Amino acid sequence: MDLKQYLKKHTQTVDAALESYLPGEDRLPQSLHKAMRYSIFAGGKRIRPLLAIAACEAAGGHVDAVLPVACALEMIHTYSLIHDDLPAMDNDDFRRGRPTNHKVFGDANAILAGDALLTEAFVLLSGADSGPAEVRLQVLHLVARAAGCAGMVGGQVLDMESEGKQLDLPTLEYIHIHKTGALIRAALDAGALIGGARQETQRQLSRYGELIGLAFQITDDILDVVGDQSEIGKDVGSDAARGKATYVSLLGLPQSRQRANELRHLALESLADLGLAAEPLRQIANYVVERTS
Amino acid sequence: MDLKQYLKKHTQTVDAALESYLPGEDRLPQSLHKAMRYSIFAGGKRIRPLLAIAACEAAGGHVDAVLPVACALEMIHTYSLIHDDLPAMDNDDFRRGRPTNHKVFGDANAILAGDALLTEAFVLLSGADSGPAEVRLQVLHLVARAAGCAGMVGGQVLDMESEGKQLDLPTLEYIHIHKTGALIRAALDAGALIGGARQETQRQLSRYGELIGLAFQITDDILDVVGDQSEIGKDVGSDAARGKATYVSLLGLPQSRQRANELRHLALESLADLGLAAEPLRQIANYVVERTS
Repeated sequence: MDLKQYLKKHTQTVDAALESYLPGEDRLPQSLHKAMRYSIFAGGKRIRPLLAIAACEAAGGHVDAVLPVACALEMIHTYSLIHDDLPAMDNDDFRRGRPTNHKVFGDANAILAGDALLTEAFVLLSGADSGPAEVRLQVLHLVARAAGCAGMVGGQVLDMESEGKQLDLPTLEYIHIHKTGALIRAALDAGALIGGARQETQRQLSRYGELIGLAFQITDDILDVVGDQSEIGKDVGSDAARGKATYVSLLGLPQSRQRANELRHLALESLADLGLAAEPLRQIANYVVERTS
Repeated sequence: MDLKQYLKKHTQTVDAALESYLPGEDRLPQSLHKAMRYSIFAGGKRIRPLLAIAACEAAGGHVDAVLPVACALEMIHTYSLIHDDLPAMDNDDFRRGRPTNHKVFGDANAILAGDALLTEAFVLLSGADSGPAEVRLQVLHLVARAAGCAGMVGGQVLDMESEGKQLDLPTLEYIHIHKTGALIRAALDAGALIGGARQETQRQLSRYGELIGLAFQITDDILDVVGDQSEIGKDVGSDAARGKATYVSLLGLPQSRQRANELRHLALESLADLGLAAEPLRQIANYVVERTS
C-alpha cells in the first residue's frame, strides 16, 4: 500500500464529513460558525481521525461507521488548540502558519468557538446513527473520559503548572500521556470497538495507541528544536523560550530520537498478530516518527 | 405539598450526587478539581436539576433514574457561568457573593475548569447505568444540542454581539430562548424521557419548560433592577451599566412583571392534564416568578 495515497484519500473523506457535520456559516450566529470552521479547516494533519479509521479497518470494520467518532475527535482536538492558544494560556499568535482563532475573532469568540466545538462533538457522537446504542455509548464514554479531567484537560493543567520547573522524565511522560496521549489512544480504542474487534485485538490496538501517542509527542519536541519553521507553521524553539521541559531538554536530541524509535518498534510489535488489515497503522507508526511537520 | 421542603430535600439529593460524581480534590491535578468543585458548590439554586427531577416525577419516574442528567445539567450550567465571568467575556469579579472562579484560580485554570466540567457532564451521561441505552443516547443528544451552538453557546454569542445595540423584543427573546431557555427546556425534556412520559406528556412538559425558561429570564432582568444585592449576590444594575437590553429596558417594570405572569399562567395551563404528580412543577412555576434572588 502507498501511505501517501491512503492518507490523502482518507483526509479528504474526513474533511468532507466535517464539512457536512458542522453547521454552515450562514447559520445564526454566523460569527460563531465562522470561528468554529476557521480552526477546523486550518490544515490540520487529521492524525486522530486517520488513526480511528485505520484501527476500525484493522479490526475488520468499514470507514463509514467510524466517521462520526473520527470527526468528533478532530473537533475535540481543535477546541483544545483554540483554548491553548488564548492569551490566558500559551498566548500564541500563529498556528499552522495562520493567525490563531482569537487573533481573528477575539478572545471571547475563541473561548465560545472552542466550547461549541467540544459540545458539537458530543452532539455528533450521540446523534449519528452508526451501530448499536450500547457501542455508541461506550465509544462516547471513552472519548469523553480521554478529553476530560482524567485525560487531556488534566494533562494540560499539569503541563501549565510545570512551566519553568525542573521535571524528571516520569513526570514529563505522565503529562504527555494525559495531554496528548489520551485522545490518540481513544482514537484507537474507538476505532477498535466500532470495527468489532475481539478483546485481544482491542488490547493490541490500545497498546499501539498508547505507544504511538508518546512517540508523536517526542517527535513534536524534536521538531520544536530541529524543525523547519515554514513546514511546521509555528515558531521553532518556542518550548525552550517558554522554559518548558521537553524530551529534548531532558534526554538530548540523540536519545530522544532513540526513544521515539523504540516506541515505534514496540507499537509495531503490538500489531504483529493483525495481518494485512493493519498495514496502514504500521505505516502511520513510521510516519509519526519520521514526519518533518 | 410544601415547596420549601421539596426544594430542600431534592437540593440535598442533588448536592450529594454531585459530590459523588465529581472527582475528589485529592485527585491529580488537584488545582483543577478544586477549581471545578469551587464553582459547583458555590450555592447555586439547582434550578435545572430540580426541574429535571420534577419532570421525571410528573411523568411517573423515580428520582434516582434522573439524577445523572440532573447533575450533568448543573455541571454544564456551571461551566457556562465560569466562562461567562472571564475577563474576556463579562469580566465579573463576584457571583453569588463569592469571588468568581478566575479571581481565585486564575484565567487559565478557570477556562480549563469550565472545559472539564462540560466534558465531565458527558462522561457522566454516557457512563451512569440508568436505563436503556437508546434513551440515554437520546437524552445525551438533546442535552448536547441545548448546550451547543444551536442552543446556549449560540445564545451567548448573540448576546455578546448585541451589547450596546438597540434591540427589539423578538430579538431579545430569541437570545434568551437560546442562552438560558434551551438548557432549562432540556431539563424538562430529559426528565420526561427518563420518566417514561407518553408523547403528549413529553410535549406538555417541553412547553412548560419553554415558558418557564423565559419567565425565569424576565425575573432575572427584573431582579437586576429591583433586587437586593445581598440576596442575589452580585451587583444590582449591572445590565444597565453594561448597556445591555433587558425586558425591563424594553418594556418597563410593570409590563415585564405582567409578561412574566402571563408566561407563568401559560406554563401552568400546559400542566393541566398532569394531575397531582405535577404539583412540584406548578409550585416551581410560581417560585420562578416570585423569587427574590
